[in-house]
Amino acid sequence: MKYSFKNDYSEGAHTRILESLMRTNLVQEPGYGEDSLSMEARDLLLRKFDGRDVDIHFTSGGTQTNLVSISSILRPYESVIAPASGHIAMHEAGAIESTGHKINTVDTADGKLRVQDIKAVVDAHDDEHMVTPRVVFVSDSTEVGSVYSKRELAELSAFCKANGLYLYLDGARLGSALTSAQNDLSLADIAELVDMFYIGGTKNGALLGEAVIISNDALKEDFRIHMKQKGALLAKGRVLGIQFLELFKDDLFFELARHANRMAMKLAEGIKNRGYEFLTEPVSNQIFPIFPDPLIEKLRENYGFYVWDKVGTERSAIRLVTSWATLEDAVDEFIVDLG
Amino acid sequence: MKYSFKNDYSEGAHTRILESLMRTNLVQEPGYGEDSLSMEARDLLLRKFDGRDVDIHFTSGGTQTNLVSISSILRPYESVIAPASGHIAMHEAGAIESTGHKINTVDTADGKLRVQDIKAVVDAHDDEHMVTPRVVFVSDSTEVGSVYSKRELAELSAFCKANGLYLYLDGARLGSALTSAQNDLSLADIAELVDMFYIGGTKNGALLGEAVIISNDALKEDFRIHMKQKGALLAKGRVLGIQFLELFKDDLFFELARHANRMAMKLAEGIKNRGYEFLTEPVSNQIFPIFPDPLIEKLRENYGFYVWDKVGTERSAIRLVTSWATLEDAVDEFIVDLG
Amino acid sequence: MKYSFKNDYSEGAHTRILESLMRTNLVQEPGYGEDSLSMEARDLLLRKFDGRDVDIHFTSGGTQTNLVSISSILRPYESVIAPASGHIAMHEAGAIESTGHKINTVDTADGKLRVQDIKAVVDAHDDEHMVTPRVVFVSDSTEVGSVYSKRELAELSAFCKANGLYLYLDGARLGSALTSAQNDLSLADIAELVDMFYIGGTKNGALLGEAVIISNDALKEDFRIHMKQKGALLAKGRVLGIQFLELFKDDLFFELARHANRMAMKLAEGIKNRGYEFLTEPVSNQIFPIFPDPLIEKLRENYGFYVWDKVGTERSAIRLVTSWATLEDAVDEFIVDLG
Amino acid sequence: MKYSFKNDYSEGAHTRILESLMRTNLVQEPGYGEDSLSMEARDLLLRKFDGRDVDIHFTSGGTQTNLVSISSILRPYESVIAPASGHIAMHEAGAIESTGHKINTVDTADGKLRVQDIKAVVDAHDDEHMVTPRVVFVSDSTEVGSVYSKRELAELSAFCKANGLYLYLDGARLGSALTSAQNDLSLADIAELVDMFYIGGTKNGALLGEAVIISNDALKEDFRIHMKQKGALLAKGRVLGIQFLELFKDDLFFELARHANRMAMKLAEGIKNRGYEFLTEPVSNQIFPIFPDPLIEKLRENYGFYVWDKVGTERSAIRLVTSWATLEDAVDEFIVDLG
Repeated sequence: MKYSFKNDYSEGAHTRILESLMRTNLVQEPGYGEDSLSMEARDLLLRKFDGRDVDIHFTSGGTQTNLVSISSILRPYESVIAPASGHIAMHEAGAIESTGHKINTVDTADGKLRVQDIKAVVDAHDDEHMVTPRVVFVSDSTEVGSVYSKRELAELSAFCKANGLYLYLDGARLGSALTSAQNDLSLADIAELVDMFYIGGTKNGALLGEAVIISNDALKEDFRIHMKQKGALLAKGRVLGIQFLELFKDDLFFELARHANRMAMKLAEGIKNRGYEFLTEPVSNQIFPIFPDPLIEKLRENYGFYVWDKVGTERSAIRLVTSWATLEDAVDEFIVDLG
Repeated sequence: MKYSFKNDYSEGAHTRILESLMRTNLVQEPGYGEDSLSMEARDLLLRKFDGRDVDIHFTSGGTQTNLVSISSILRPYESVIAPASGHIAMHEAGAIESTGHKINTVDTADGKLRVQDIKAVVDAHDDEHMVTPRVVFVSDSTEVGSVYSKRELAELSAFCKANGLYLYLDGARLGSALTSAQNDLSLADIAELVDMFYIGGTKNGALLGEAVIISNDALKEDFRIHMKQKGALLAKGRVLGIQFLELFKDDLFFELARHANRMAMKLAEGIKNRGYEFLTEPVSNQIFPIFPDPLIEKLRENYGFYVWDKVGTERSAIRLVTSWATLEDAVDEFIVDLG
Repeated sequence: MKYSFKNDYSEGAHTRILESLMRTNLVQEPGYGEDSLSMEARDLLLRKFDGRDVDIHFTSGGTQTNLVSISSILRPYESVIAPASGHIAMHEAGAIESTGHKINTVDTADGKLRVQDIKAVVDAHDDEHMVTPRVVFVSDSTEVGSVYSKRELAELSAFCKANGLYLYLDGARLGSALTSAQNDLSLADIAELVDMFYIGGTKNGALLGEAVIISNDALKEDFRIHMKQKGALLAKGRVLGIQFLELFKDDLFFELARHANRMAMKLAEGIKNRGYEFLTEPVSNQIFPIFPDPLIEKLRENYGFYVWDKVGTERSAIRLVTSWATLEDAVDEFIVDLG
Repeated sequence: MKYSFKNDYSEGAHTRILESLMRTNLVQEPGYGEDSLSMEARDLLLRKFDGRDVDIHFTSGGTQTNLVSISSILRPYESVIAPASGHIAMHEAGAIESTGHKINTVDTADGKLRVQDIKAVVDAHDDEHMVTPRVVFVSDSTEVGSVYSKRELAELSAFCKANGLYLYLDGARLGSALTSAQNDLSLADIAELVDMFYIGGTKNGALLGEAVIISNDALKEDFRIHMKQKGALLAKGRVLGIQFLELFKDDLFFELARHANRMAMKLAEGIKNRGYEFLTEPVSNQIFPIFPDPLIEKLRENYGFYVWDKVGTERSAIRLVTSWATLEDAVDEFIVDLG
């Protein structure tokens, strides 16, 4: 295989992170995220929120973060509304249900929830023999690569506030979303509009690590005990702190995400120029071109990717993912090989 | 503060691990533990088991490993027997109960379970209005620094097999146990005597990481899905694979543990020479000297450690922990300062 | 209000049950279902199964029975496939998820699952990042009044056996199903085709009570402990035993169900004669006539029922439920009032 | 066997309850506890609370009530403190843990918790790697027959309020406690001192049923959904309503309990007169005389009871339980047979 476009976690981490691990390696630090590196990372991140007093915690991965966060919010009979394509609904092996909670799924064309989707679920749950929906789960970018506009997120936020719902945003690929040409949201906007979210490190240049941001005061209490109980409080918390310390120094986080997006857009451009269509409009680091099945078989010989879905009888959409580490040469070569 | 003896996770990782991260950083690898580095690490580890066909999985930390492992074994009404001092009983914020299971605790003088302890619990649970004990949890070394002999572990193993119980060993500090002067167990012995256990990396020179070893075939099925559901399947599994690849090349793992033990023994020797007693016999990298309270206050000014327990009215036992990274100079200085 | 057709649990119990409670009241009996009355009831029920060695347990209600039964079968990462209209999916306040398990729902036109529905879910769950479907949940009669034929249930059964799935049948209204004109199944057939099911007492003349039938040997072990843990083991188990003892003496159970169905058919006939259509073909004790909204408002003044669903803009389907206790006069009057 | 003193649920129900079931049997009533009989029962019960605005719910049994109630209060990482002899700790098959929560047990001589017991647990749980104790569980009468005085309960209550703990009282045998010669508590006192408790019907003359009393406003919200989710919301709620309607008309509840206690005191008196001692002072309907083992074997031939505990090498304590239905003749005969 020449190159893998399978996902955005195929390589290790940006060199600056590894260098920082080296540099600080033998300094003795307290455990469990109370080390000076994690504190420095939190201070740095805090500046992104325009003075808003958010709580910041570092966790190891997306599924872990979703299960700790969502279960920390819900009472036993409460549920979470999510798109059917949402990561928690399909690709986390029942992690949310394992904590005791139902996911109310909504079919969506583009992976994004709208107010009417949420309203329909809330309206349908009107008696005490049913769960009470309490959290609304969105991803930005979504599992099919789309991104939310500020207006869209603000509408969801307003509806949630008016209806006693908490809005939670899975930001596994938030870097790519925030640097998309379609984006008009900032980290500070998101902290204002949602109650809890996370900034994905694993898929944007970290060895591992997600940063949970809790902006709603009511959800801050004892979050560390929730983390501990679910096995998410790393003894050497410094390892996670270093990831975000480096990612948010000089805005490396955004620089890496921009690279991923630029590679995706270059791929998309090349594919479009060859006359192919897309399942969804390419706007972030996941794109879904539609190819004839024999061409897909041919591409498989040299490239790694997932076949996403059948389109009619003779074509399929594939998923190509770029990352902070994607080589421009590989992108160019893919376009050439497509010809 | 001059130096911390608070725990064995105050520093980063052995340099060889960081160098390996650097060296392999840009190689594209599959996710979720199916990378070539994790596979190589498993192959290397497998050689320690004398041809026994164990399954090996890499996880991130002790609490996570215990909760995934134990909950993977138990049916809903089954429980786990543990010493009251066991990590799962006291210091994991109810992680096991969070997965639905009771812990039956037994008070022990030295942190070790004996057959009569287990038998007493089993005998007391003789009707269907009670949980059914199914897993026996031991740690080696224990939370108070003691280690199991081969005979002791074999007796537990025989009783468990005869009574339909599974024996699980928490090896967060297994390196220190296996290199203790009191030890006569090998990794292969342990795999033969227990059904599932883990080899702790975090507390013996890794950035993070534990290696779960499943030797009982009945417990192997679908373990990866249990991991995924509990948020323990790291996207960049390579990071964990590298830890164990380096730790088990040239037996670095044992070398690091031996250093930790040697430092602990040197500390213990110096303390004994000054005329102080210990709460438990020092045999591994955690030692518990008993000092007058004013001396403890004095030591606190320069050293980090936990006060473990009151001993009478004017003395207390403190816990001193050494590690792969403990500086011999710091040990020497502590002894001097004690004078 | 003249009369309620809201459900089949509006009255107490058949007189024979109350008389039996009176008659046996002061006999001292062991607790927790080991009384002579429960044993006699189990013996009586056992005769319905043509010598098949099923286990029989008595529980208090439908939601309780479903949650105890399904959670007793599943390992932590396994899920249950159910129609979206299934009672566990919508009307049990997340009881199944509360035990840690996802429900994979399938939209169905008539409340019945078919092989292709199950196959689609199984096929879509093909990797270890997803739950593993293990139980298939069906109801007979279904939540919209339809019933399974022997051929239909046999097809599901064969598919489940061939694919390592367990088939579970919610028989809250099994009496009505088995006495429907469309039915060709017997209790013995069901025990042969499904792995576990329950026979509903609450909705067919008992004060309370469901009889769980476990025909698959692999699912029998320790079921009473599951019951105890979920609060389903009643101290005075005799109360439940008496319900089934009386219901299955002289086949009172079937007689009561036949009455309910006859009343439903009479209602349906009268409604059809007035020119109204039905949402689903009336075949059991729940029927769903479609009426103009103003007529529904009018009927509400004298009758109790649920409005089920809008049909177009000016009509709705309502649910009329008959029972063992439904008065024929009330049925006649309803038909007259409809005119 | 002549007579069973094994427990207080060996017979059915007081005749007035059965007669009420008969009398109201064919009246159509709403389901799930919203029937007129349950409402009337709640109104009647409410009068016992001196105008305090408590919420009242009817459930089916003790284990169910404890698991629904306690899990409704706790957040995921919170625990419940209980005596080691507490019903939830030993005899509910892990029901509380099944809802995700640890029980912190305390050894007690007489089944009663004191402030120092609770304080010790709270003090020991002082960091975020441990559960946070939040509920204190007491029983009145306790599992070994002792009862709380008003002063004792008030002390617990004051400590709980001052330390952010909720006090929960298991009243499976509250009737016997409140009519004990040692008692100085009223139902209104209990509602003032504890946050949630239940009044046991099953063990005091009901067919089944417990009445949950929630006096702390903060714990009232959505309790019915918790009940539904755990399978505790009975379709024919009328059955439970009738039990408490009859029990609290003319204070039948207290009259039945007084009979049970009188029978126990008569038994105790006779046993004392024969020169035997007791494990604990007999004050309620469970008494624990100590007999030589051969005498116990002899008594077994004619009487049902549990052997509670060995006392030395040649004697044991047995548990004799009386109830609302205990025949005075049987008591007399037991005393005679003892001679």
